[in-house]
Amino acid sequence: MAASAAAAAPWKQLLLNALDSNANFKHSTYFQLATIGSNGRPANRTVVFRGFEDGSNKIHINTDCRTCKIEEIKRFPFAEICWYFTESWEQFRINGTVDIIDGSNPDPMKLVQREKAWFGSSLRSRLQYLGPTPGLPCISEEPSQELSLDPSTGPVGAFCLLVVDPDQVDYLNLKSNERLSFTSKDNGDGGKCWISKKINP
Amino acid sequence: MAASAAAAAPWKQLLLNALDSNANFKHSTYFQLATIGSNGRPANRTVVFRGFEDGSNKIHINTDCRTCKIEEIKRFPFAEICWYFTESWEQFRINGTVDIIDGSNPDPMKLVQREKAWFGSSLRSRLQYLGPTPGLPCISEEPSQELSLDPSTGPVGAFCLLVVDPDQVDYLNLKSNERLSFTSKDNGDGGKCWISKKINP
Repeated sequence: MAASAAAAAPWKQLLLNALDSNANFKHSTYFQLATIGSNGRPANRTVVFRGFEDGSNKIHINTDCRTCKIEEIKRFPFAEICWYFTESWEQFRINGTVDIIDGSNPDPMKLVQREKAWFGSSLRSRLQYLGPTPGLPCISEEPSQELSLDPSTGPVGAFCLLVVDPDQVDYLNLKSNERLSFTSKDNGDGGKCWISKKINP
Repeated sequence: MAASAAAAAPWKQLLLNALDSNANFKHSTYFQLATIGSNGRPANRTVVFRGFEDGSNKIHINTDCRTCKIEEIKRFPFAEICWYFTESWEQFRINGTVDIIDGSNPDPMKLVQREKAWFGSSLRSRLQYLGPTPGLPCISEEPSQELSLDPSTGPVGAFCLLVVDPDQVDYLNLKSNERLSFTSKDNGDGGKCWISKKINP
């Protein structure tokens, strides 16, 4: 089965269905993002799904520019998402390239996306980007001082949008014991053509 | 803080506590294992925790020798586990080396471990290793034939035990907003000496 580039990728509806059937659980929007660490070893952490890019199959993640994954992705811009849905027993493994959109991005359209992502996140989430550098030694025994942020303030320097552009997806349903492999090819006009096949679980 | 090699690693009790406080949920024993794929890109999938090796900090995972991760680990024997506990909001990122114990392993002690892992898993789990090769195209539209296995039959060829030997652990508690980094050094007598420090979340 092949789908046109303009259309949603054939795995996207499966993912939207899974999000829908697991919507009672906050953690259903959490997944694990694997990258290659700066020492060449695998790195893996939980991040939050922030939605699809409008009219596309690209996946948005908010992160702090000061975390290790930014340097890792700059060196090697590939990642695999592993997204397991605990209620429906479905797993999506999504492999793709990652684009980093920080405040220095030269593309005005991308800066608009970053701003949208910023205002789309809660005030509490935004405050994290004002805190001390993640991963550095914690120097104070005191709870960190109360930070405050005006809700109209735009994205701060540490705020970064990651955009994962999938080119391979492996779907596994542990209830039906079915597995599908989705692979893509560039179709020549900047889009992708997706092929799916049923494989052994 | 430093702990001796013979003692449990300082992060191990945190992990046992997390398993205990999330024990109501079957998925609390599932985690994501990231490796380097054979194309050099990150690979990431959900696997099941099968316990610690007796008297050690090593983590056991059962898998099928015919899955891609075996070839991946043979080429590059490093992995990062990302283990998120959905009830207690705790995350463990466990980086280490991976040992593959299949039926051809020359070490009799390791073969005993593999056999123990086999008999420690359910009959239903064991049956999976008799099924068609995971990841290959599904050639039959029929449901696979009923497989049967004598409960006293030892490990079949496709059954493989993975042993992850952690050398770095990152612990994050999203309720208390605390994060700890645990790193190890070989202590010269085959054991490891662990150092922990508090870092910014």
